[in-house]
Amino acid sequence: MKTINTRRSIRKYTDAAVSDTLLRRLLSEAERTQTMGNLQLYSVVVTRSDEQKRRLAPAHFNQPMVEGAPVVLTFCADFRRTTLWAENRNADPGYDNMLSFQNAATDALLFCQTFCNLAEEEGLGCCFLGTTVYMPQMIIDVLQLPRLVVPVATITLGWPDEQPALTDRLPLDAIMHEETYCDYTPERIDRFYAEKEALEENREFVRLNGKQTLAQVFTDCRYTRRDNEAMSAGLIDVLKKQGFLR
Amino acid sequence: MKTINTRRSIRKYTDAAVSDTLLRRLLSEAERTQTMGNLQLYSVVVTRSDEQKRRLAPAHFNQPMVEGAPVVLTFCADFRRTTLWAENRNADPGYDNMLSFQNAATDALLFCQTFCNLAEEEGLGCCFLGTTVYMPQMIIDVLQLPRLVVPVATITLGWPDEQPALTDRLPLDAIMHEETYCDYTPERIDRFYAEKEALEENREFVRLNGKQTLAQVFTDCRYTRRDNEAMSAGLIDVLKKQGFLR
Repeated sequence: MKTINTRRSIRKYTDAAVSDTLLRRLLSEAERTQTMGNLQLYSVVVTRSDEQKRRLAPAHFNQPMVEGAPVVLTFCADFRRTTLWAENRNADPGYDNMLSFQNAATDALLFCQTFCNLAEEEGLGCCFLGTTVYMPQMIIDVLQLPRLVVPVATITLGWPDEQPALTDRLPLDAIMHEETYCDYTPERIDRFYAEKEALEENREFVRLNGKQTLAQVFTDCRYTRRDNEAMSAGLIDVLKKQGFLR
Repeated sequence: MKTINTRRSIRKYTDAAVSDTLLRRLLSEAERTQTMGNLQLYSVVVTRSDEQKRRLAPAHFNQPMVEGAPVVLTFCADFRRTTLWAENRNADPGYDNMLSFQNAATDALLFCQTFCNLAEEEGLGCCFLGTTVYMPQMIIDVLQLPRLVVPVATITLGWPDEQPALTDRLPLDAIMHEETYCDYTPERIDRFYAEKEALEENREFVRLNGKQTLAQVFTDCRYTRRDNEAMSAGLIDVLKKQGFLR
């Protein structure tokens, strides 16, 4: 896993195919990831058809990777298979609740991340689309996801046709706490964010958006309160409609 | 990452220490994992003191790994640091909502899983404690987690002192769908669960619990409707109390 030290999200892919044999091997290996009670509370939907990619794209704000990648993978929290198994075995499944969604989403995300690490070690490039939970109903409709199945992650996958610069990360002490949570004073915030704020690419980002600070680019442009609150309401509706919340 | 093919959860550890140098290197490498808007919406709390392990144990049903492991790591969805950064930079953060919890939980879980992959490649053993979201308030109290911080995963970590058998997994076709979700007929359920149900260890598990089917062991003993519904209510209360849900 030396590849982790140079990993970057890849958004441009060559025309080379990702073979079904390779994809199946990597997904099978990722199945070794720990899972709650060994129930494997996830599913992955593989999109290779141009028609389905075209239909998925709007759910991801038409980011070009969706139609440009040879493969799109949608990882879903899935309690349906386990529930049907129980119903077919004279058992009474009680997984139509919030805790069960959290358990299944956890299983799906851990499985997804092992898959990403394996794919990157193989030389493939991935881009993780956080948009999956922004308008999940659109994805549910396109992929025909039934009750107790909710998409939680999307990966576009292919052979890299770009090598973008490594992005910065916060110093380890910014995210690591010893024994108890060490809260952030203004001085600690200044220290931990100094390098990020000083990067020329981030200063340019602030100028381009006509803002005073980098944080304002996030709060006013990229992830606004208004969008977050509207999409939160949509996500809660989806959890209700898919049977995880009353 | 060849280790993935032989990975198992490790619950017994030798007396050997996990050095701070190694732990910091693995956590730093795991920071390369993709993260929403490069915001790193997570924190990890490192527990090494016996006193803190003893206090965490009941939140994990006193499973012996918690007090038996040299290190316990609690991974948290964390929008607090980003929110304080924004507040200190004349920006208006709007991350006290459900979507933001989902985004931060995703970041924390992906980071956690890369850490596990790296630790296992290093020869360390991990056990993932799904109990983290069962009674999160106890963990919040012990680790003194403030508003906009919620624990979503716990790992016990150490050098393996056991080599349990590999556990079974469902065939890939049970969890993989092509283009659209292929729903599960009773025949497909029978086929996908046949191997699991036939395993001698699972048949013994059914007998020991005095049940008729393996599924009943899960629905009636391990993950019951009653427990799930009570713990769902607790989880929702915690999301409200920590400021992610109104």
